[in-house]
Amino acid sequence: MTFSVAVSGASGYAGGEILRILAAHPDVEIRTVTAHSNAGQPLIQHQPHLRSLAHLTLQNTTPEVLAGHDVVFLALPHGQSGQYTDALGDTPLVIDAGADHRLESREAWDAFYGGDFHDPWAYGVPELPVAGAKQRDRLVGATRIAAPGCNASTVSLSLAPGVAAGVIDAADIVSVLAVGPSGAGKSLKTNLLASEILGTANPYAVGGTHRHIPEIRQALVGAGATGPVGISFTPVIVPMARGILATSTAPIAAGACDDQIRAAWESAYGDETFVQLLPAGSFPRTADVVGANTALMGLAIDRAANRVVVVTAVDNLVKGTAGAAVQSMNIALGLAEGTGLSVNGVAP
Amino acid sequence: MTFSVAVSGASGYAGGEILRILAAHPDVEIRTVTAHSNAGQPLIQHQPHLRSLAHLTLQNTTPEVLAGHDVVFLALPHGQSGQYTDALGDTPLVIDAGADHRLESREAWDAFYGGDFHDPWAYGVPELPVAGAKQRDRLVGATRIAAPGCNASTVSLSLAPGVAAGVIDAADIVSVLAVGPSGAGKSLKTNLLASEILGTANPYAVGGTHRHIPEIRQALVGAGATGPVGISFTPVIVPMARGILATSTAPIAAGACDDQIRAAWESAYGDETFVQLLPAGSFPRTADVVGANTALMGLAIDRAANRVVVVTAVDNLVKGTAGAAVQSMNIALGLAEGTGLSVNGVAP
Amino acid sequence: MTFSVAVSGASGYAGGEILRILAAHPDVEIRTVTAHSNAGQPLIQHQPHLRSLAHLTLQNTTPEVLAGHDVVFLALPHGQSGQYTDALGDTPLVIDAGADHRLESREAWDAFYGGDFHDPWAYGVPELPVAGAKQRDRLVGATRIAAPGCNASTVSLSLAPGVAAGVIDAADIVSVLAVGPSGAGKSLKTNLLASEILGTANPYAVGGTHRHIPEIRQALVGAGATGPVGISFTPVIVPMARGILATSTAPIAAGACDDQIRAAWESAYGDETFVQLLPAGSFPRTADVVGANTALMGLAIDRAANRVVVVTAVDNLVKGTAGAAVQSMNIALGLAEGTGLSVNGVAP
Amino acid sequence: MTFSVAVSGASGYAGGEILRILAAHPDVEIRTVTAHSNAGQPLIQHQPHLRSLAHLTLQNTTPEVLAGHDVVFLALPHGQSGQYTDALGDTPLVIDAGADHRLESREAWDAFYGGDFHDPWAYGVPELPVAGAKQRDRLVGATRIAAPGCNASTVSLSLAPGVAAGVIDAADIVSVLAVGPSGAGKSLKTNLLASEILGTANPYAVGGTHRHIPEIRQALVGAGATGPVGISFTPVIVPMARGILATSTAPIAAGACDDQIRAAWESAYGDETFVQLLPAGSFPRTADVVGANTALMGLAIDRAANRVVVVTAVDNLVKGTAGAAVQSMNIALGLAEGTGLSVNGVAP
Repeated sequence: MTFSVAVSGASGYAGGEILRILAAHPDVEIRTVTAHSNAGQPLIQHQPHLRSLAHLTLQNTTPEVLAGHDVVFLALPHGQSGQYTDALGDTPLVIDAGADHRLESREAWDAFYGGDFHDPWAYGVPELPVAGAKQRDRLVGATRIAAPGCNASTVSLSLAPGVAAGVIDAADIVSVLAVGPSGAGKSLKTNLLASEILGTANPYAVGGTHRHIPEIRQALVGAGATGPVGISFTPVIVPMARGILATSTAPIAAGACDDQIRAAWESAYGDETFVQLLPAGSFPRTADVVGANTALMGLAIDRAANRVVVVTAVDNLVKGTAGAAVQSMNIALGLAEGTGLSVNGVAP
Repeated sequence: MTFSVAVSGASGYAGGEILRILAAHPDVEIRTVTAHSNAGQPLIQHQPHLRSLAHLTLQNTTPEVLAGHDVVFLALPHGQSGQYTDALGDTPLVIDAGADHRLESREAWDAFYGGDFHDPWAYGVPELPVAGAKQRDRLVGATRIAAPGCNASTVSLSLAPGVAAGVIDAADIVSVLAVGPSGAGKSLKTNLLASEILGTANPYAVGGTHRHIPEIRQALVGAGATGPVGISFTPVIVPMARGILATSTAPIAAGACDDQIRAAWESAYGDETFVQLLPAGSFPRTADVVGANTALMGLAIDRAANRVVVVTAVDNLVKGTAGAAVQSMNIALGLAEGTGLSVNGVAP
Repeated sequence: MTFSVAVSGASGYAGGEILRILAAHPDVEIRTVTAHSNAGQPLIQHQPHLRSLAHLTLQNTTPEVLAGHDVVFLALPHGQSGQYTDALGDTPLVIDAGADHRLESREAWDAFYGGDFHDPWAYGVPELPVAGAKQRDRLVGATRIAAPGCNASTVSLSLAPGVAAGVIDAADIVSVLAVGPSGAGKSLKTNLLASEILGTANPYAVGGTHRHIPEIRQALVGAGATGPVGISFTPVIVPMARGILATSTAPIAAGACDDQIRAAWESAYGDETFVQLLPAGSFPRTADVVGANTALMGLAIDRAANRVVVVTAVDNLVKGTAGAAVQSMNIALGLAEGTGLSVNGVAP
Repeated sequence: MTFSVAVSGASGYAGGEILRILAAHPDVEIRTVTAHSNAGQPLIQHQPHLRSLAHLTLQNTTPEVLAGHDVVFLALPHGQSGQYTDALGDTPLVIDAGADHRLESREAWDAFYGGDFHDPWAYGVPELPVAGAKQRDRLVGATRIAAPGCNASTVSLSLAPGVAAGVIDAADIVSVLAVGPSGAGKSLKTNLLASEILGTANPYAVGGTHRHIPEIRQALVGAGATGPVGISFTPVIVPMARGILATSTAPIAAGACDDQIRAAWESAYGDETFVQLLPAGSFPRTADVVGANTALMGLAIDRAANRVVVVTAVDNLVKGTAGAAVQSMNIALGLAEGTGLSVNGVAP
């Protein structure tokens, strides 16, 4: 069976990456692509790398255009998905790459986003440990899926095994991320101009204001954090188009020995294809996961600092967004989970 | 008076930057440049950007060649400076850009470097708070100066004011740095090839092994840390030739109010030219200090995470190495401290 | 049927890219990977992005190890392939990614390479116009194939249609290429260090010395150049890991009208999947072909300068090397030509 | 004597670079900085690298605000300078970094720019050969100066010596430039976003449409071109914030021997500080001139292609714009020509 698909926000980076992956997916037909201001133009004008989709024209993003597909991907700015979800009531599967359906806490939504609160959907990070199981279980047969924030899922995957196993203390997490500017979207802002980013490292949202913080907290509570969850979170834009390298540290829980610590991650991800723990002493670089749906992770235990350090590399547009969305779609539709997804990166 | 100068390691990045700065310094004459394997070749062949020094030829790095100058800069791999220092006994001022004379603790040297331990020299970070004063005082009239490690001085400057004022807790520092590959020198290593660094973020020395850790600890103890100093330290190479963006966090000391915290940094650096605290809510980027001897610093107080976050940008080759060396030279020689040094960066 | 494959030079960039493509190829089994100094080590240590090949160990590059496969790829420095080709006499298909078997002219070999001359093999650029046909025809059933030089095939594809149609004059070609450093291989040379390439454009082999010049000349003569072929060729390394953007110009042939000119390229490539001419007024960028086996081409007719300008983007490691090799393999083995190859790039 | 200066367009890249240079100039006082939409804001908010100018506030760009200074720099989009020049009638020296006063030919202006034509001012490229002399002579005592286009002056300097000496044929010039995006200004355009430029090479204005073409033609005619001047000109944006690497070729004039050719450039630039011809076999890279007012040039004679190849590196914001403007100012005001300008670059 072939599933018909519509992708909104198709002229942007997240939408483009969803299309790139789906174009190689054997079980879907990309029937409709939509945009706002670019409607009426050929898709290829905005996504010149998607040669196999040169026949598609961007249509207006309206409920009517999006309706009637087996699967609809919403790749819209946060706050804009809600208006479509009601109208897509008959659509078997809707996957939102925006933030609108990620948070369970209205209070957290109000504090970090504001505007209308929407009900939470199944969170699209299959490998995430949750209460003795995996998030994957909640995606089987799901009809509404919230794809994760790229930074949030990277940090959550990094630390959830240690939280779940009780070998780290979630109360004093520090996470600093080197991120590529594609995570900020195709927005016309001075600070995203090439001349402002080439040759320089730029921090933003410093001091606890980044919107992915409540999403991480929610994931770690879901993984089993028993006490308070505290996160110092600082993203730094660096001159690479895509990629996240998250360095996350947390205090070692009292009494946890080295073997126990490492075992927490090994048991969480030992059977996973797309989340891989590297051997002790090895750490990943973002180049290794460009274009891949893989999260690569290295773990160090720093007894002098009394902290576990987890360094995780993902492609923000793939494992961080579009790959997570397609992987979740595969699970929801009952397809083989890795269909259309690459475990290998494009390097150098 | 004009001071005659010799620079060893002149074909490398640190040596080259010392020469770039000295070439514009009104009170010095660059008389001698030395190297090892490149001896006999024109300097300009290895430093093609130093057009004004096209007349210089690289000589062998020997005690005899280096002797007889007013000032000698040693820009050699660590462990190699010691052999020259005895032979330069008559040289009025020797400044070592290597690590050999930075550490006061033989134990720390053995643990992180190994090989012969050398006596510590005056530490070349003038603005660093030390016991109610500044490191500057110890550089006045100094005859032997150890220029700092670039990462170490960046983190030390970031946190020393808070440690000195008792508003942060040095026991649980976390520091993650985005650094350019020039900090690793002009070494022929596969992981420093352009194809390995373009488009990617690469962590290294993860988990408490980086050699700058004891240097930071020493600086923070010198600044007045009363309890243990613990540092989780992770550098990440990103695709910019030069620059360090250090994100450093430490727990807020019990009872410290926001005004007290900010005042600690303001009072430490309010009168400094080359270390500047940005207004609340502003954070620096490395582009702003390229080619400059300036450390730019932004401070956030994250009450939810109970941590102070300091983001500091420096040019690793200038404020991190060569600029620090020349600034220290100026102080030692009784020249105006900023002679030959730029506070403005080259951007974009 | 599944074809067994061996890849030599598997720890390098060309070898790695051949493996990345073959790992997703449904009709081959990667049985053997070999290297020189890295033999005995896990492949993944040198190609950490090839997660699906983590089970492979690098063996020594010897004729014995390479023998016994259906297909052998040689990704060795030029001059080293010859020694293996005799020993691989029983191997059904050998594809050399090096230069040893590309040139038909011993004189050209001596002038630009030197060392032993080897007999030319079928040239692995299927879409190249040759004497009223395509190079593809010569690859059907071929047993020995010479994969092209990345710069050479890019320029040859750019201009061959105009030469074949007689609408440009091959006597005064000027070609300037922006190229990524991966084309130079994983070699430990100072000029390939990241600090030497980040933020800068570096020309090399200026003035007619580049080894790909005779390869271009041979291709254009093969395409039907009737007079002398003259090529001013200048590559410039720019800070992108992979990619070639070739700007090639040639004088408009006397009497050629605009429609005739454009028609030459349209008729040459109108039916091709992996070589695409963009609409008039559109020009490609290398981002659009990263990871893809696609050459994208834009054509301008500058009557004021009396020149045709062709701008072509390829991924040097794919269409320029490994993709061309696999595409040629597919043809030689009777597989669908595009098997395992992507027409879409990974962007941004 | 100290000259008072006003700089318009002070929040942009060209304006910022003029300010960076003037901030280190001993003979000027930066009294006024102006902008349009950013008026009223601190300069440092838009130029955070100009720490020494933190006291300045952006004023409105009006004739009244600009009047009353010894020197006014106009760094405005083309077409906007004209409105100010009348009102600045009493200003002793006005230097326009825009295009409005560069072209002598109204026809060329209409063809490439359009809108009101303005009278040409003294062209600010001091080292340019003109009719047996240098452009410098026309700048002595000048009161109105047109700073050059960055690409145009780079190509003009590259080829003018050969044209003047009659050793190359200006009728068939081909010039391809690798350029940084800062040359396009701080404009909010999708194609200037970092994600669109990182890791990719992007051609633009292909096929004879670039506005700098008539400026080059005018310079080469001025240098003594006796026949027609034909230029195939293609700029390619590459991922470096600043810099131009221009590869320019022209046919060798009949009968010109190698010594004559090289002598043409040597005699033109042998006495120049800021335009330097490298030794035979050496070619420049843009890194060597970052932040410097230096044009570095390498020359090859390719007899097989019958072309002279000149590769020239400049910093588009310095020698290409702001440095040229300040150097011209120095000449006009009777100051030492190199005052405030660096011959050394900031590398790596």
